[in-house]
Amino acid sequence: MISEKIKQAVEIMKEKDLDLWMTFVRESDIAHDPCLDYILGTGCTWKSAFIITREGKTAAVVGSLDVANITSTGYYQEVIGYRESMKEPLLDVLGRLNPRTIGVNFSLDTPLADGLSHGMYLNLMEYLRDTRFREKLVSAEGLIGALRGRKSQTEVERIEESIRLTLVMFDRVSDFIRPGRTEKEIGAFLTEQVKEAKVVAAWDLDQCPAVFTGPESAGAHAGPTDRRVDYGHLQNIDFGVRKNEYCSDLQRTWYILRQGETRPPAEVQKAFDTIKESIRLAAQSLKPGVEGWMVDDVARRHITSAGYEEYPHALGHQIGRFAHDGAGLLCPKWERYGRLPFDKVEEHQVYTLEPRITLKDYGVATIEEIVVVEKDGCRFLSEPQMRIYCIGP
Amino acid sequence: MISEKIKQAVEIMKEKDLDLWMTFVRESDIAHDPCLDYILGTGCTWKSAFIITREGKTAAVVGSLDVANITSTGYYQEVIGYRESMKEPLLDVLGRLNPRTIGVNFSLDTPLADGLSHGMYLNLMEYLRDTRFREKLVSAEGLIGALRGRKSQTEVERIEESIRLTLVMFDRVSDFIRPGRTEKEIGAFLTEQVKEAKVVAAWDLDQCPAVFTGPESAGAHAGPTDRRVDYGHLQNIDFGVRKNEYCSDLQRTWYILRQGETRPPAEVQKAFDTIKESIRLAAQSLKPGVEGWMVDDVARRHITSAGYEEYPHALGHQIGRFAHDGAGLLCPKWERYGRLPFDKVEEHQVYTLEPRITLKDYGVATIEEIVVVEKDGCRFLSEPQMRIYCIGP
Repeated sequence: MISEKIKQAVEIMKEKDLDLWMTFVRESDIAHDPCLDYILGTGCTWKSAFIITREGKTAAVVGSLDVANITSTGYYQEVIGYRESMKEPLLDVLGRLNPRTIGVNFSLDTPLADGLSHGMYLNLMEYLRDTRFREKLVSAEGLIGALRGRKSQTEVERIEESIRLTLVMFDRVSDFIRPGRTEKEIGAFLTEQVKEAKVVAAWDLDQCPAVFTGPESAGAHAGPTDRRVDYGHLQNIDFGVRKNEYCSDLQRTWYILRQGETRPPAEVQKAFDTIKESIRLAAQSLKPGVEGWMVDDVARRHITSAGYEEYPHALGHQIGRFAHDGAGLLCPKWERYGRLPFDKVEEHQVYTLEPRITLKDYGVATIEEIVVVEKDGCRFLSEPQMRIYCIGP
Repeated sequence: MISEKIKQAVEIMKEKDLDLWMTFVRESDIAHDPCLDYILGTGCTWKSAFIITREGKTAAVVGSLDVANITSTGYYQEVIGYRESMKEPLLDVLGRLNPRTIGVNFSLDTPLADGLSHGMYLNLMEYLRDTRFREKLVSAEGLIGALRGRKSQTEVERIEESIRLTLVMFDRVSDFIRPGRTEKEIGAFLTEQVKEAKVVAAWDLDQCPAVFTGPESAGAHAGPTDRRVDYGHLQNIDFGVRKNEYCSDLQRTWYILRQGETRPPAEVQKAFDTIKESIRLAAQSLKPGVEGWMVDDVARRHITSAGYEEYPHALGHQIGRFAHDGAGLLCPKWERYGRLPFDKVEEHQVYTLEPRITLKDYGVATIEEIVVVEKDGCRFLSEPQMRIYCIGP
């Protein structure tokens, strides 16, 4: 897959008119630039530069003790080792390749394109001082966003496999949820499933799964508590697995029927249906060329025009090696998202769709689905939740 | 331990005359500033600022969905949530605390003090534009280096426990090494030990353990290969475990006796003894107040004056939550180490000592020990390797 991705990077560099891409890193055990997973597949110890040009040339400048390991990957045509300082070999390679632009990994808005630390940026500026290259540095975020976003068939299939596994686990946990169980017990049940399937949680184990039951719960981004499932609770679980390096990220909603109830109260049903419909409408609007905020806006307006408060987050994010992956988001034009709402949707991107409605007396109704963008629209990779899962009294 | 470390940070800030320390991060699942392990113990999703002042005040500015989780840690007196933009609440907190200096996590020389990405630095500068705080940013590397370096009793005990485990595993692998075994088989044996002990490898599993046998091996920073142990090989293993979040990192050397040999050849013995003695001399010189390069120099000169080439790396690094931890190194004054060779050794730091000699016809002789710096010198935490481990013919 790394050869495939390096080849794809070269194509994208031509498209974006970028001459040279340099991933500039050190001690990858401590600070792992996520680009390394696409262009190297291993780590390095000392300051290192991994260089790819639009002509398809590759070169690595690495500490002498890292040479054997980097050479053994076979991805770099030239592997140049140094002992005391990388400055000279680095300037020599750049001089020979003579790029008009040098893309490096920093980004205001996209964490995955921001693997260059500020200290390493300062080191690089110091190395390039008094050279013509100092003024040629640009952000590689466009390249990285496209490289992570545009999934190959293999990548989509891996995500689908993680989705399939997750949905099976949701089925199983449905039989486990009942009044009296705590969020922690439900979380532990799923964690056990993850272990048995020999995969890992898609994000920080503390919050994956996240389990929220009833009106008093945090509702998002928190770990399971000792709160107990009770009659009349809305419950939601946010959960995903990583299998073969690719993630799922899904949410499902349950309702705990009270004595005498055979279905959720009308208020709960209406909220759920509004969520469901907002996902359908958003998916309908999701196609190559639209800007992310437009898709968010479809779902957001459907929810607010039904009289609910808008959800305090984005409608959806891309997914891949990380649960939150790629660049462009389906999000409102809030300052905190920077330029991301204006990124254009592209074919082969994979997005979540995850609006929410909070009901003061019940809890949070939320569904999170996953879709892949195709030529003229999008296709669901997850079998959508069409009805609230009811737990009998 | 986090309360303990926050308290220690406040003391160090007084000592270093730093008013306010701000860890500025986002999406900690993707880019985990290692300082979070000392001051938070969990992660965050949106842009977040974790603030500690020299008066012991603490405040966190985090995305609204992260508020519940961060509040539940109990470490931050104020947890301020935002939805659309963190700018206003951040400037408000800074305005109230009114620091003369703001330490942020960037460093030219220390990866562990360099958790601020360049994109996040640019975001911060943009938030602080037109405020009096823009000129008050300084590197927090001195604080972070001291916080990671000066170990509490608990931290030293945890490292000792990992060392003990590693030495037991080295004992066991001694019975497994024999001519015909491959480096990979020997690596797999140790990996199995790690699993059975329910701990994890101290660094990237691909290279932990690292196993090098014979004159043709990479000798460092590479994974085990299909190369087979043979008579007359020097073999070394670089290996450590992480237990209770704290690491070991040790190297041992074996010699495979040839038919008719009862001890290693004189050439091998001499190299091993030179290594052993260089460690003894370096340890003797390691005490609070000396600069790192001086200790390296003692070992380096002992080796070169015995007629060997100098080792192409530092004599030793600090160890802690990472195998390579802390700031100051025992290293030569090479450009690539920046200011680190001039950092003064401090009490309660834990260092490795790991010189090496490469013998063209045999392989690499190397020992790595671990010592803790005490008031007037240093104390070995690892029971030193005193003789070459010989594998009988």
